[in-house]
Amino acid sequence: MPHPLFEKHRATLDAAVEAIHTRGYWAAFNEMPSPKTYGETAMEDGKRAYEACLGKEFALDQPGVRGWMSSERSPYGVALDVKYPVCDAEALVAAGQRAMAGWQKIGAEGRVGVCLEILDRLNKRSFEIAHAVMMTTGQGWMMAFQAGGPHAQDRGLEAVAYAWREQSFVPAEAVWEKPQGKNPPLVMKKHFEIVGRGVALVVGCGTFPTWNTYPGLFAALATGNAAIVKPHSNAILPTALTVRIAREVLAENGLDADLVTLAAFDQREDTQTLARHPAVKSVDFTGGNAFGQWLIDNCRQAQVYAELAGVNNIVIDSTDAYKAMLRNLAFTLALYSGQMCTTSQAILVPADGIETDEGRKSYDDVCADLARAIEGFLAKPEVAHAVLGAVQSEDTLRRIDIANGGALGRVILAARTLANPDFPNAQVRTPVLIACDAADESAWMEERFGPISFIVKVADTAAAIALSEHVVARHGALTVGLYSTRQEVIDAMTAATWRSKVALSINLTGGVFVNQSAAFSDYHGTGGNPAANASYADSAFVANRFRVVQRRYHV
Amino acid sequence: MPHPLFEKHRATLDAAVEAIHTRGYWAAFNEMPSPKTYGETAMEDGKRAYEACLGKEFALDQPGVRGWMSSERSPYGVALDVKYPVCDAEALVAAGQRAMAGWQKIGAEGRVGVCLEILDRLNKRSFEIAHAVMMTTGQGWMMAFQAGGPHAQDRGLEAVAYAWREQSFVPAEAVWEKPQGKNPPLVMKKHFEIVGRGVALVVGCGTFPTWNTYPGLFAALATGNAAIVKPHSNAILPTALTVRIAREVLAENGLDADLVTLAAFDQREDTQTLARHPAVKSVDFTGGNAFGQWLIDNCRQAQVYAELAGVNNIVIDSTDAYKAMLRNLAFTLALYSGQMCTTSQAILVPADGIETDEGRKSYDDVCADLARAIEGFLAKPEVAHAVLGAVQSEDTLRRIDIANGGALGRVILAARTLANPDFPNAQVRTPVLIACDAADESAWMEERFGPISFIVKVADTAAAIALSEHVVARHGALTVGLYSTRQEVIDAMTAATWRSKVALSINLTGGVFVNQSAAFSDYHGTGGNPAANASYADSAFVANRFRVVQRRYHV
Repeated sequence: MPHPLFEKHRATLDAAVEAIHTRGYWAAFNEMPSPKTYGETAMEDGKRAYEACLGKEFALDQPGVRGWMSSERSPYGVALDVKYPVCDAEALVAAGQRAMAGWQKIGAEGRVGVCLEILDRLNKRSFEIAHAVMMTTGQGWMMAFQAGGPHAQDRGLEAVAYAWREQSFVPAEAVWEKPQGKNPPLVMKKHFEIVGRGVALVVGCGTFPTWNTYPGLFAALATGNAAIVKPHSNAILPTALTVRIAREVLAENGLDADLVTLAAFDQREDTQTLARHPAVKSVDFTGGNAFGQWLIDNCRQAQVYAELAGVNNIVIDSTDAYKAMLRNLAFTLALYSGQMCTTSQAILVPADGIETDEGRKSYDDVCADLARAIEGFLAKPEVAHAVLGAVQSEDTLRRIDIANGGALGRVILAARTLANPDFPNAQVRTPVLIACDAADESAWMEERFGPISFIVKVADTAAAIALSEHVVARHGALTVGLYSTRQEVIDAMTAATWRSKVALSINLTGGVFVNQSAAFSDYHGTGGNPAANASYADSAFVANRFRVVQRRYHV
Repeated sequence: MPHPLFEKHRATLDAAVEAIHTRGYWAAFNEMPSPKTYGETAMEDGKRAYEACLGKEFALDQPGVRGWMSSERSPYGVALDVKYPVCDAEALVAAGQRAMAGWQKIGAEGRVGVCLEILDRLNKRSFEIAHAVMMTTGQGWMMAFQAGGPHAQDRGLEAVAYAWREQSFVPAEAVWEKPQGKNPPLVMKKHFEIVGRGVALVVGCGTFPTWNTYPGLFAALATGNAAIVKPHSNAILPTALTVRIAREVLAENGLDADLVTLAAFDQREDTQTLARHPAVKSVDFTGGNAFGQWLIDNCRQAQVYAELAGVNNIVIDSTDAYKAMLRNLAFTLALYSGQMCTTSQAILVPADGIETDEGRKSYDDVCADLARAIEGFLAKPEVAHAVLGAVQSEDTLRRIDIANGGALGRVILAARTLANPDFPNAQVRTPVLIACDAADESAWMEERFGPISFIVKVADTAAAIALSEHVVARHGALTVGLYSTRQEVIDAMTAATWRSKVALSINLTGGVFVNQSAAFSDYHGTGGNPAANASYADSAFVANRFRVVQRRYHV
């Protein structure tokens, strides 16, 4: 008899599995914060629920509590002061291991059913989570709702769909009957048990605490593992809410809530100790190269799925929609002040300019026109604040100052500090645009996270394509773009991205942006260049998170 | 239009995909050396073809030849003296990379079709390859034919079936149409290109040069990679024949033969250099822990799929078929003089004996009866030689001598040296059986490859199960067995194997042996304990060998 939650969510699961196969547009969760979907009072209820968390202890009933910590500082300058339980890492691991036996026992159907119930419950709490995301990350409201809520939930569901598909291929049992000529056949009964690898550690980032956490979290859970979620110290609340909801659903269904726990540590060493624990068999990580590489180098007992830094880039060869191209680029560079792992950092433009529908544009024209497009797009304060949000970290603010000061190249457009009327203490910055030569590699050829982009002068289009390939292969990238009206250029760039293994967006001039990737259709990261060793989501993202243990006997 | 070889082999592929899903008995290639299947003159033709290779240069027309090497020493004591081209590692890698573009271009269908054609061609050459396997490894003829021929081909086909299934889920293209309320939808065309990770290195072992090589080789090829096959220095010929056949099929189909090359090196450093080459993106390895661990530690640019050493074990609690149990164990221990990675090394027996259909048997009874069963089974020389084969390495001969001398515990049955009338210089040994206490861990708790087994005295059945779990978790195992008439014991052992992640065979008393695993039905290795980090075969064995690179544009 299938698990009741599997039955309840079966239609969603089937649609998700169909979606990852056809990869057309599909979404399980409504990205519009519509009262029809979420309820007439959802906005107010969510805000109140979020506010109710502030200034107090966030109860989770986890084992091994040895104190409380509080570390979040809102980029919007508001006081958060939420206190989280600090738990002994060893206690969390032991509790996770204990919880795995019951989790294994309900089988893939049961696990997938429970995961879908958690996602459904998370969806209903999207407004509350969106406020938590907005206030901890500095995202604008709409992005916090969409990327932090339904889009993150869809990415989680996508991982569950892959996990389900792979597990559903493993039969629970088989009769093996081998003919023996004139003798009776050899007959054996075989059982195949899916077992999780062990406790999973999911390490979140400060900018997308749900979107970058849910794929690994749900991939690990659905394949039979316990999960300890270690959020970024500045974006704990969205994760804490997620963990609490998961624990509630588990407990309601007679399962051990300690299958999912929050690791809010006050010391960095605790995370390192946890990541190297022999019982921790997978680590999902999103963040900087230093800690990511440390995890890869040191957590040899675990599978490490890491999304690190990269140098996303765009080659401009030519366009038949110059204004629309500039508008599209301006939005990409301004969105969340460039604090997306998919934001373009380097725009490669031939030294002798580009052909456009408005005539030939010199390199300097492109620089000036893109600067103007950004300024124009951000002219209205309400648009600017909605799109830019606030700057998440002191490091990013410092990087912006350095770029503004001209240390990285000629400043075409300086970052401006804007005052947000709703949040007087918010740290708001517009993008800074730098002109530089391809040879200035120390300036543009390493990740400079935040709203800092370079218009890089290259010899010609062929050189730009070769340079893009080199940068991706060497430094990694999650996204590259191309603008060209010439098929041979598109073909050459396509072949270059096959070699360097990066997703390519061609001639984006409308309502899709190079830094956006859609669950069920766009692979986020290829897993084949230094920016990420895994992809959201594919079979490889789930297939090695579980093992099959067989037993056989004569019948 | 599908590739003609895909069409040609479509029925076989479909049946293989069905088989990996249902996991009942299925085989594509006839394991019986039947003239009906293989032709009336197959035996003679194969022998002659093998003999024609001896004492001369083995031409392969590979790039970068810088000399010739010869290193094989037959365990049967016959002269081989085949010379293989030593190629520059850099040249092999460069040639493989060049060949990958055309291999990518024909797509998954084309690649799978060509792989199936290679396997079909290998099957037709099974007798020739069997002779090469027999003479280089010391296997008996029938094992050399079955394991070296059709069984190895089936394992290769199994890997292709997994590779095909995973790749077939990736659509070549999709139209993504996202509704925009009352506005026109956003519409994008997306293309998804499957690209191999890079050049694959497949490192073979000295005992099963085809069976342990084909899974990695065909998994790598089918997913779009070039493959360089580095055989064990004592078992090159079976691999060289395989590579030659693969190259012939590639060339016949207008593909670059350098997609598959043989790396016959005369210096160990060459293998290490090759394994660490930045363009080598996967390493498949079967062999000892020392080099396997070196690969895992040092080849950080590559996915490493490693089958290493382990301590396979069997728990005996009770049996209702004592004689059949002893017969089954005797065969397992004798087969190929225990030189299988799946042979049981430790048999755990309670100190106060076991219940059987012949009454209670003390620990000493079990020791004596198993010794007698082995002696009885090997009493007829023709049976003994057919089953034992010859000892593959000097190291194994040394280990047998040490065990025989009593250094590892009380000798219950000493290994004997047999004279093989057909091969006067063959190194033939019968199994050595040692009695020891569970506490003598330094004796029995590390792999002692070859016909050396321990009957380990443990406190009771519960202690035996706990010890088995400990050994598997700590030292690894590919197989464990259990004999028990009590369901609660079977359940406890089953749960233990779920935790330690090892395949369990229960009450084998007939024509199936714990050291045998059948393609399409038995997973060889779970990938979840120290004996192997991967399994033949599952999704995880193929899914991370290719990446998907997408491109998208408005339509």
